[in-house]
Amino acid sequence: MIVVDLITKKRDGGEHSADELQFLIEGIVEGTVPDYQIAAWAMAVYFQGMTAAESTALTMAMAGSGETLDLQGLADSDKLIVDKHSSGGVGDKTTLTVGPVVAACGLPVGKMSGRGLSFSGGTIDKLEGIPGWSASLSAERFRHQLREVGLVVAAQTATLAPADQILYALRDVTGTVPSLPLIAGSIMSKKLAAGAQAIVLDVKCGRGAFMESLPQARELAQLMVSIGRGAGRRVTALVTAMEQPLGQAVGNNLEVREAIETLHGKGPRDFQQLTQEVASEMLLLGDPQLHRELKAKGEEAGRESARRKVQEAIDSGAAFAKFVDFVGAQGGDTTVVNSPERLATAPVRLELQSKRGGLIDAVDARAVGLAVVALGGGRQQKGDAIDHRVGVILAKKVGERIDPGDTLCTIHAADSTAAHSAAARILDAYSIAHRRGFARGGNGERSAGEGPGRETSSERDAQEGQIVLERITS
Amino acid sequence: MIVVDLITKKRDGGEHSADELQFLIEGIVEGTVPDYQIAAWAMAVYFQGMTAAESTALTMAMAGSGETLDLQGLADSDKLIVDKHSSGGVGDKTTLTVGPVVAACGLPVGKMSGRGLSFSGGTIDKLEGIPGWSASLSAERFRHQLREVGLVVAAQTATLAPADQILYALRDVTGTVPSLPLIAGSIMSKKLAAGAQAIVLDVKCGRGAFMESLPQARELAQLMVSIGRGAGRRVTALVTAMEQPLGQAVGNNLEVREAIETLHGKGPRDFQQLTQEVASEMLLLGDPQLHRELKAKGEEAGRESARRKVQEAIDSGAAFAKFVDFVGAQGGDTTVVNSPERLATAPVRLELQSKRGGLIDAVDARAVGLAVVALGGGRQQKGDAIDHRVGVILAKKVGERIDPGDTLCTIHAADSTAAHSAAARILDAYSIAHRRGFARGGNGERSAGEGPGRETSSERDAQEGQIVLERITS
Repeated sequence: MIVVDLITKKRDGGEHSADELQFLIEGIVEGTVPDYQIAAWAMAVYFQGMTAAESTALTMAMAGSGETLDLQGLADSDKLIVDKHSSGGVGDKTTLTVGPVVAACGLPVGKMSGRGLSFSGGTIDKLEGIPGWSASLSAERFRHQLREVGLVVAAQTATLAPADQILYALRDVTGTVPSLPLIAGSIMSKKLAAGAQAIVLDVKCGRGAFMESLPQARELAQLMVSIGRGAGRRVTALVTAMEQPLGQAVGNNLEVREAIETLHGKGPRDFQQLTQEVASEMLLLGDPQLHRELKAKGEEAGRESARRKVQEAIDSGAAFAKFVDFVGAQGGDTTVVNSPERLATAPVRLELQSKRGGLIDAVDARAVGLAVVALGGGRQQKGDAIDHRVGVILAKKVGERIDPGDTLCTIHAADSTAAHSAAARILDAYSIAHRRGFARGGNGERSAGEGPGRETSSERDAQEGQIVLERITS
Repeated sequence: MIVVDLITKKRDGGEHSADELQFLIEGIVEGTVPDYQIAAWAMAVYFQGMTAAESTALTMAMAGSGETLDLQGLADSDKLIVDKHSSGGVGDKTTLTVGPVVAACGLPVGKMSGRGLSFSGGTIDKLEGIPGWSASLSAERFRHQLREVGLVVAAQTATLAPADQILYALRDVTGTVPSLPLIAGSIMSKKLAAGAQAIVLDVKCGRGAFMESLPQARELAQLMVSIGRGAGRRVTALVTAMEQPLGQAVGNNLEVREAIETLHGKGPRDFQQLTQEVASEMLLLGDPQLHRELKAKGEEAGRESARRKVQEAIDSGAAFAKFVDFVGAQGGDTTVVNSPERLATAPVRLELQSKRGGLIDAVDARAVGLAVVALGGGRQQKGDAIDHRVGVILAKKVGERIDPGDTLCTIHAADSTAAHSAAARILDAYSIAHRRGFARGGNGERSAGEGPGRETSSERDAQEGQIVLERITS
């Protein structure tokens, strides 16, 4: 095969065969296809797209480009090992709650995870705020902990789907990141290589997500479900809201505390709800008894059983106990988990009060995420160090009523300058409707035409409550 | 400036500023912009195109990326030095006739030229068949010969528009060759760097050209005229027919012989005509007296004066004498020019007879070009050696009547195997209409539906005669 012919074929809208994609991916890993050809090909894919069959073949070629984990026989009897992936959002600490909940329900969760970049945080960054906790595990230790504890979160190794790592690095500098088949292939290849037998995908949608619009998020979700099916895996995708940050905490240690609260049955309502939804879907995919119940009793009743099981795991303390075991197994200081106030805190706290009353209309998740990055809580570039202490606690979220002088949020910063700089950004992220029919920006006036028309109270509640926008199952 | 932002801008249909293009081109030459980023950018340009302003800025940045020739003061009084460029075709030996004609008319012609690739031949390859002739000239010798002889053809040096050379090599392996702004930039940057004050562009159109359709060829011609105007040069573009090969000879030494015949006032009619048209346009651009005449007497009368001047240069023998001087000045054996039968000839000649009678309907220029490449007369890859002796003489061309047993063409080959292999290809290139309303392929039957409807004799003559399809002037 001649590489330039493959580039030309894609450029002209042709469909690659599985062999062609295998040839390209092998060439990427072995270095026999130069990166300038890969870059041109990726840009052609950006413009011409890929069919579901091509996306599946690409994903499977990438998944098979390095080591793959074999998790067979690690779950009891006929249960499946279910992985969970989020496409990344602001304040998204869902793995920290969902993992222990599902594991406490008897379904092992073994997860490879990444680090955060730009406005979006990473699970491993959050957990590394717990002294001693480490994400570097050998495959053997991974399997051992999965069998003994039922919950593992490890850093993706360089030998897992290396084609994806090379391709992603190249896409990052050639303007070819936002291509749905390449995004889907990148996510799914890692899941397949990491041995998941079933996968719940949390595709974030909105200002604080990589997919800003619902049609875009839906298309990505459908494509990933289709790839999973093509690869013989059971997959459910949830498209979930990411206009405002998830929960109240944004910033690593603050999010760990919020996750622990939520494992204690407290925590913000939207985050509780997402935890329950994602965990339920994982149980439904991996637990054949629940799956049978769903088939027998119908969607809603079956899903209700799963939700009950999740709630019991939280209420009984089993989920929290699982989290403690998990942290301990990976070298983390469990006294900190038992007393989260011992997590390192930022020296400066700045409370922001609202100057006026009204209803919170919007909290721009991306703006909040970028403010936390600027505080040092995230990375502008790969390899940047992270300050785990900093972040923001949002006291008020969309749909809540506020009076002049009420606290909007509290900024946790390393110093006063950083705190005030973040304050300006976060005030800007807030949009307050000061009376029905009008919306006001945090720092400026907004004309009636710019603000969306206000809904009734009940509509607003419904909107606020709706964290899962769509559900797509293979 | 951040390269990935420039790639993203073009990917999303944005327009580059001149500064941005200058930055990219400098980065290409200095190696500070990696080739994978250039490749992705070129593919984005392929899909999104460029405005005329962008194309001009790109071309000027490329023209200025290395040495530039200064030809000021080398033409008499107020005359301009006119360059000529052909976008490449089969049997295109026009520079060999036009150069001496224009120089004999008192307008210096100093030309940088390239080598042939794929089905299309190169001027330098053709001239190198003359023993001793060399295209390697220093800038000083180039200027000296231009002043003394009035005609120079030199190989493009590595220091001329190096950005184009790097970019072209990269485009060649990344499927980004067929992008009009990049093609136009590549051609025009070399012309500008080579110091031309006015340029006649011969944009070939048809099966034997890189631009197969008239709209495509027209778009390229218009873009190049617009770039030339933007760069302050006078430019005329002719879109000329390249469905069948130009003239009767295809192959290096055979074409040199045909060019010499044409300089003696003989030679095939279409080639005579193209020589006259291109030379006239060069005179009209570069000779202010002719230009004034055209303004005063009108387009047709002015053009007629230029054509008469061209005809006089040929009839008087001045054009041929100029060719002899030119060949001698660059070290070539002039006895060979005076007795062209001394040019090296191929050991094997194979005459192909037509099996049936009818009218020649088509001679696929690309197929003939590729057959000559296969004979060893052209390059499949850069750097391939060339056999100057081989090629084909087309005895019959489109619109000519043929009887069974008449010679269609003569193949000149290095050995009998090569000759017979080329014979099959060239027979296939011929399409013969065996009676009115029907066309027949050379080797097979063609149904009435496949062959185009036949024109009347006079229409056919007109079609045959029409070598210049369009003329675009800045």
